[in-house]
Amino acid sequence: MCGENRIEVYDTTLRDGSQGEGVAFSVSDKLEIVERLDEIGFDFIEGGWPGSNPKDEEFFEQVKAFKPKHSRLAAFGMTRRANSAVDADPTLAGLLATGAGVVTIFGKTWDLHVKEVLKTSLKNNLRMIEDSVAFLKAAGLEVVYDAEHFFDGYKENPEYALATLQAAETGGADWLALCDTNGGTLTWDLVEAVREAKASVTAPIGIHTHNDSGLAVANSLAAVQCGATQVHGTINGYGERCGNADLCVVVPTLELKMNKPCLPEGNLSKLTELSLYVAEIANQALNERCPYVGNSAFAHKGGMHLDAMQKNALTYEHVDPTLVGNRRRLLLSELSGRSLILDKAREYDPNVKKDSPAIQRLFDELRERELQGYLFEGAEGSFQLLLMKAFNKHRELFHRVGFRIIVDKTAEGLKSEATIKIGLGDRQVHTAAEGGGPVDALDAALRKAVQEFYPQIANIHLTDYKVRVLDGGTGTASKVRVLIETTDNETLWGTVGVSENLIEASWQALVDSLEYGLLYKKARNGENES
Amino acid sequence: MCGENRIEVYDTTLRDGSQGEGVAFSVSDKLEIVERLDEIGFDFIEGGWPGSNPKDEEFFEQVKAFKPKHSRLAAFGMTRRANSAVDADPTLAGLLATGAGVVTIFGKTWDLHVKEVLKTSLKNNLRMIEDSVAFLKAAGLEVVYDAEHFFDGYKENPEYALATLQAAETGGADWLALCDTNGGTLTWDLVEAVREAKASVTAPIGIHTHNDSGLAVANSLAAVQCGATQVHGTINGYGERCGNADLCVVVPTLELKMNKPCLPEGNLSKLTELSLYVAEIANQALNERCPYVGNSAFAHKGGMHLDAMQKNALTYEHVDPTLVGNRRRLLLSELSGRSLILDKAREYDPNVKKDSPAIQRLFDELRERELQGYLFEGAEGSFQLLLMKAFNKHRELFHRVGFRIIVDKTAEGLKSEATIKIGLGDRQVHTAAEGGGPVDALDAALRKAVQEFYPQIANIHLTDYKVRVLDGGTGTASKVRVLIETTDNETLWGTVGVSENLIEASWQALVDSLEYGLLYKKARNGENES
Repeated sequence: MCGENRIEVYDTTLRDGSQGEGVAFSVSDKLEIVERLDEIGFDFIEGGWPGSNPKDEEFFEQVKAFKPKHSRLAAFGMTRRANSAVDADPTLAGLLATGAGVVTIFGKTWDLHVKEVLKTSLKNNLRMIEDSVAFLKAAGLEVVYDAEHFFDGYKENPEYALATLQAAETGGADWLALCDTNGGTLTWDLVEAVREAKASVTAPIGIHTHNDSGLAVANSLAAVQCGATQVHGTINGYGERCGNADLCVVVPTLELKMNKPCLPEGNLSKLTELSLYVAEIANQALNERCPYVGNSAFAHKGGMHLDAMQKNALTYEHVDPTLVGNRRRLLLSELSGRSLILDKAREYDPNVKKDSPAIQRLFDELRERELQGYLFEGAEGSFQLLLMKAFNKHRELFHRVGFRIIVDKTAEGLKSEATIKIGLGDRQVHTAAEGGGPVDALDAALRKAVQEFYPQIANIHLTDYKVRVLDGGTGTASKVRVLIETTDNETLWGTVGVSENLIEASWQALVDSLEYGLLYKKARNGENES
Repeated sequence: MCGENRIEVYDTTLRDGSQGEGVAFSVSDKLEIVERLDEIGFDFIEGGWPGSNPKDEEFFEQVKAFKPKHSRLAAFGMTRRANSAVDADPTLAGLLATGAGVVTIFGKTWDLHVKEVLKTSLKNNLRMIEDSVAFLKAAGLEVVYDAEHFFDGYKENPEYALATLQAAETGGADWLALCDTNGGTLTWDLVEAVREAKASVTAPIGIHTHNDSGLAVANSLAAVQCGATQVHGTINGYGERCGNADLCVVVPTLELKMNKPCLPEGNLSKLTELSLYVAEIANQALNERCPYVGNSAFAHKGGMHLDAMQKNALTYEHVDPTLVGNRRRLLLSELSGRSLILDKAREYDPNVKKDSPAIQRLFDELRERELQGYLFEGAEGSFQLLLMKAFNKHRELFHRVGFRIIVDKTAEGLKSEATIKIGLGDRQVHTAAEGGGPVDALDAALRKAVQEFYPQIANIHLTDYKVRVLDGGTGTASKVRVLIETTDNETLWGTVGVSENLIEASWQALVDSLEYGLLYKKARNGENES
């Protein structure tokens, strides 16, 4: 964990991250995330800003019961007000009251802000910084001083910007974090300012960047290259406007490419899981293309790439995906050429060729479906059913006579019921079920009916259900794509449905998910079911 | 348009971009995008790779009818094969056949690839590069040579990497584009290699980066800073794995911060619209946090930020959003403090104070709703209704007796019908309507019923409908959030509903959308409706 090369990671997902549009954490969300951040081994966890809202105060109260293994908990606030004595300042008192061992306070670096926002003198601002830091140090705390707008301030008035850092250092700050608050700084300008800061103070330097120019990650790495030893950021880059530096991208690069250890040995491989977990809690759509941890980060689609990947993975991968807990994926699409599809088709016919009629049929079908809005990249199950059809290995599991869904809203509440009728040979099953919503009711009724013919589906169940509206602008009549994920506790498969009717799209994906679960393993074992 | 400082923009959305997971363009999609890219004024539009799939060949055939105003159309391919004569090579012949005035071919820079993928000698690879470029130049074309894996190759064997560039230059290449194909190169390593390349050849240099380390934008800018004059990228950063350099981020930085004009005067402000347009065609979820063009790029949420923004916009904005066609947004949330909400509340009561009981009620309600999964940031309409309720300016427009939805799947197809019963005073309306799906039917029935009481809603209609599953992992019984956008042809408003039942969530948002449309304008004009 130690050594001169080590970089300390300062996570601010719970404070700066929660300023991102659409991100809102409850107190219990925050407590759960703290446990996870401690588990992966970040050095600092900034929990919130007591005084900005009652939720953050409650968080600090409740988190006292948690004993972290690796992390130090930080409370965030600002320097004392322009006219209040340091020991009478409510913000500073609130920070002490949290009981957090680390306190981070920001102060003004940019003369424009001192004049226009604080409306005080440049000299008084320096006193406010020094005073406030000294007050917190006297209370025995570790103090991080955040130099807000450091790089903009440095550009306008470098002497004053450096003087604010020196004031914090004189006050006894343990860390001086340089903030690109507006995210507008270009890398070479940032490098020059970090070098000047390093030359002007002796306290260790931190870097806190925002992504308004798409440079948050690059600027964090460049600052470390110039000697910064503390990196601020958030999981998945959540934060005000365009977000903060994404720790899921910064940390792997520091560890894998710059020889700067950040996490306890072996913990980097937990990063992908952490990213997913926080996205889930934050209720945020995943950034599939996120470097290292994104679902597409190691997904290969181009035909050339696929061929080369099969020869040597290094040719199109900058690092081994397992190092960050991610995985390689080879995608199905027109562009993936026929080689990948041929590979899969050989399960059904080892002698199949590129120009076999079955392959041609399959390609025509895939193209037709893709035009309608189907996507097979996340729906291997539906793809396999098309493959089975092309090779005549598919059979209809049951005859679909019909279904009816009734959603009834009365004074007593809302009720969703589905009735369904399916057949097999001479037998017909007509049954019904209720559910939390129309699709849930349909799913329940379908399972109940199919189980009459195939009791083995009892162990097949849904794990995820996603709806994507395909074309905006036409209101509730838009086309939707439904993706369903199903498991039989051994494997996981995805299926897809597309329609202007959400129920129809869901129905397609539900039927596919059962057919795949029942048929595929048999077909692979060579039994001809047609 | 001219001048030494100018950077030529090379767009590869239609080729590299379409290798992104989930991205698939039809031929007519491609033709539409070409028109838009020409309109904004990119220098190069790479249309596809003839020979990789039949769609790209058809595209080049059809695009012949289009006469661009600004752009040159490029076809993409590779150097001749190791053993074929240059004039007998099918790829090169295919490139000539497209009729495109620019041809971009890639060749191997990295000795590993020459040996393991091409399986030929290092010397023969140099001949392949020189030959192929010379052959295309002899046909009178503008030739861009893409040095695939240039930076990885340079790291392993710098002499050989530079020799491949020299071979292309000897062949007569107009541009030498240096590619970070795996996206793994750190900025300072890239800078060193670009400088060496500049010193070794005289042809102008292009830069083509991928985002696997989160550095595609930073690396493109750094290369320009070292003298590259052509920048490759895609709209919204689409592309294989983590994507390519995002032109929506690179271009504004070049123009606004580096004094490097890229587009015809005045066209930068069309960028946000272009980003939305391409996302729509590509059927991709928007990256809300995208620098410059994202919906959140200039969205301010933190209370401190909002206060300061009202004093001086420069304090938390790195550029003026209108320069790129975007806009500033002030967001509603617990974190936005009370100042923004007070501002809005003053519409109902000019004397309202932070501690007024109405404000307290509103805050309690907002907090409660946010815990349930409501988000008011995109649902100003639902927020205004809560505000009206807090100030007793709200009244129920009609009494909701109940509704019933029936979705019927039979051999003849699928039918969705909604019946609804609402009341006002002594009158009751009981009516029914059909729709493309259950929500569409409910929307139609609701409008039909409400119109009996309020004929003026005829000009209110839905423009967008979004469903978000809030918690994955529990299958079809998950909670969903529905966001609806409505217009009366004068203004646009969003409303929200949350429930485990999609129908119920939609119902809430639909009712809110009508209530807001009917009540809000009256309430603003000071009529007390309670």
